[in-house]
Amino acid sequence: MNRAAATRPGPPAARQASLREHNLALVARAVFESPVPCSRADIAAASGLTRATVSTLVDRLVAARIVGELPPLVPQRAGRPAVPLAPAPRTVVGLGLEVNVDHLGARVVDLTGTVVAEHVEPDDLHDSDAVTVLARLGRIARDLLAAVTAEGMVAAGATLALPGLVDVRTGRLVVAPNLGWSSLDPVPLLGLDDVVAGGLVIGVANEAKLAALAQAAGTVAPDVAAAVPPSYLYVSGDVGIGSAIVVERRLFHGGHGWAGEIGHVVVDPGGPRCRCGATGCLEQYAGKDALLRGAGLATTAETADLVAALDAGSPDALASVERAGRALGSALADYVNLVDVDTVLLGGIYPPLLGHLRGPVETELRERVLAAPWTDVRVAPAPVGDHAALTGGAREVLRRVVEHPAAWVEVD
Amino acid sequence: MNRAAATRPGPPAARQASLREHNLALVARAVFESPVPCSRADIAAASGLTRATVSTLVDRLVAARIVGELPPLVPQRAGRPAVPLAPAPRTVVGLGLEVNVDHLGARVVDLTGTVVAEHVEPDDLHDSDAVTVLARLGRIARDLLAAVTAEGMVAAGATLALPGLVDVRTGRLVVAPNLGWSSLDPVPLLGLDDVVAGGLVIGVANEAKLAALAQAAGTVAPDVAAAVPPSYLYVSGDVGIGSAIVVERRLFHGGHGWAGEIGHVVVDPGGPRCRCGATGCLEQYAGKDALLRGAGLATTAETADLVAALDAGSPDALASVERAGRALGSALADYVNLVDVDTVLLGGIYPPLLGHLRGPVETELRERVLAAPWTDVRVAPAPVGDHAALTGGAREVLRRVVEHPAAWVEVD
Repeated sequence: MNRAAATRPGPPAARQASLREHNLALVARAVFESPVPCSRADIAAASGLTRATVSTLVDRLVAARIVGELPPLVPQRAGRPAVPLAPAPRTVVGLGLEVNVDHLGARVVDLTGTVVAEHVEPDDLHDSDAVTVLARLGRIARDLLAAVTAEGMVAAGATLALPGLVDVRTGRLVVAPNLGWSSLDPVPLLGLDDVVAGGLVIGVANEAKLAALAQAAGTVAPDVAAAVPPSYLYVSGDVGIGSAIVVERRLFHGGHGWAGEIGHVVVDPGGPRCRCGATGCLEQYAGKDALLRGAGLATTAETADLVAALDAGSPDALASVERAGRALGSALADYVNLVDVDTVLLGGIYPPLLGHLRGPVETELRERVLAAPWTDVRVAPAPVGDHAALTGGAREVLRRVVEHPAAWVEVD
Repeated sequence: MNRAAATRPGPPAARQASLREHNLALVARAVFESPVPCSRADIAAASGLTRATVSTLVDRLVAARIVGELPPLVPQRAGRPAVPLAPAPRTVVGLGLEVNVDHLGARVVDLTGTVVAEHVEPDDLHDSDAVTVLARLGRIARDLLAAVTAEGMVAAGATLALPGLVDVRTGRLVVAPNLGWSSLDPVPLLGLDDVVAGGLVIGVANEAKLAALAQAAGTVAPDVAAAVPPSYLYVSGDVGIGSAIVVERRLFHGGHGWAGEIGHVVVDPGGPRCRCGATGCLEQYAGKDALLRGAGLATTAETADLVAALDAGSPDALASVERAGRALGSALADYVNLVDVDTVLLGGIYPPLLGHLRGPVETELRERVLAAPWTDVRVAPAPVGDHAALTGGAREVLRRVVEHPAAWVEVD
């Protein structure tokens, strides 16, 4: 053994570089995951790396403006005072973009998890024209980028959220039934070719997936959603119902990135016809239009109108939400039986309705989840509600910066 | 940069050991994943390790009887002839154990994927006594172990398959409704304490999960199931209906290891009452008892009797299988919509019925899978059918040997 170890040559250069990148990411993660500002010495102690190595790596992260240095603390013993380290504010930022059925907009988030700029325009985009809408979103994005660049910030990338099936390998939208869009390549339609040529990578993803990631405690903004466990189902109600499976803070994508289409889980095969062509899909009971129609309201009404009708004791409104709750509970029971994740975060239109939805949802879960007697299926409102897909899209960009900081760091 | 690299000390001893283990596993994997016997030189070329390193590591794997050496080939150029390497037959073996509703048994599989011994006893174990049944299985296991040990083989571990919810962290059975067992610790009841004290680790897992893994091409027996893609849903029909999600050849466990309970997905909320307490579960349409009853057969009949009735054109049998197919297709559509895995392997009682099941299953999938127009959901019989959970359980043990061979290798 010893002879073999002695004669084996050291790892080649490629592995040295890989080890350096690994250590750089280790140090970045230590700073970003620490609940309080930490020092170089803290990181050395936690990582097992030498203080000299940690110092060199921290210096690079500071130079790259990923990590910021706070004012030194008063030293508690002799020697140089420790410099507290924390995610750098207003330096490297991520851009979230979104087109949804009732709004379009953009949001810029920095490495501390703070929203530093945003612009959201409510609009009815059912069966809208993709070319016009995406060009409009591109102009919003361009203005926001110009504003944050003028303040010295650098966008590390952008993510476009769309309410439909997105091919995660190509970035193409397959279909977004409620927008009436299908088979298109959305990024070129933003009219940001010059920005992309300048190096801004724009990814595309399903909005429910990004909204789900916004709920996760993580390397960016660890304080947000501290009560959210590492694994959960996120279900977002709107005209359609999207969802995502998050396991240990990572999305479960499935083969194409299409996992989570709970809106088309069968609630009752004899139920109403869905826009997808099938019958009795969850959307036809617990989607926004179905909820409003069931309550005797116009589908142009808002969730607030439904809440007002519930508060006024409208029998139609109460019956509609009861029916939606039973259907949602039944579909969630299937979900939990199939993927065994027992925290459900409800977002979109559901949080203000939860007082009335919770009863029937929990009844169905208790009756239908096979493991219900041995585990506690928890239903809670999603902590990040307000256009969560914008936050999630921006944070995805920043998570990659923190996990692979080498790309942002000068090495010589 | 260079100065920092020069002053950074080399990795500590723990990392050296970890690198050695990593390289040992790399070499083992190269031998096990190669479709044809490979030489030390082949492994060096593919891995980037030096020939001296590869040779040392291979020698250790050969000494540990994990890798076998075949007769040398005639050299094609000057020098020592290359020695072809392959998984070692009949040396290190895995033991699969199973109690199911209609049988119990054990199977020994070697590193080449070959079944070297087995003993399976058919029996009706509905609502059986766990203490008696597990003691009986323990005696079967003891006899098989004695037989293979007498032939010089060494059991690397065992896995017990049970048809119910198993807590993967503790190895306890939570509930197996069709056996009538719940809340028990099965391993001590095998009566193999002396064997366990001697070092044999006995794991416990859900039978459908293990049967699913038996379908995967992998490090053990790469030739088996060569047509199976890396990601698939495995659904096994019996009295109950179990399933498993395999993504990139790994089980998706969920939070407790309970993912895949498709038997209790809602097909029709107005449907018949299920043993689980809910109504309209898939088992009540496509489980073995439901299929036989619907065909006018006794629930003690076999799948072969149902096939005979179908072949004879029995209207009841045809209607029962049609109804089961629609229900199975609807539940599979939910499954595919939620997890986006588009190959479905049907095992258990389903393969001989597939001629009649396929039509209604595929109709439902086409109608209900949202992505159906853009992807091809494939339904196929599971290639490993005969007590697949026994094979899967044994292979799980062997997979760990191949992935972590260091535990089996003398290091000094």
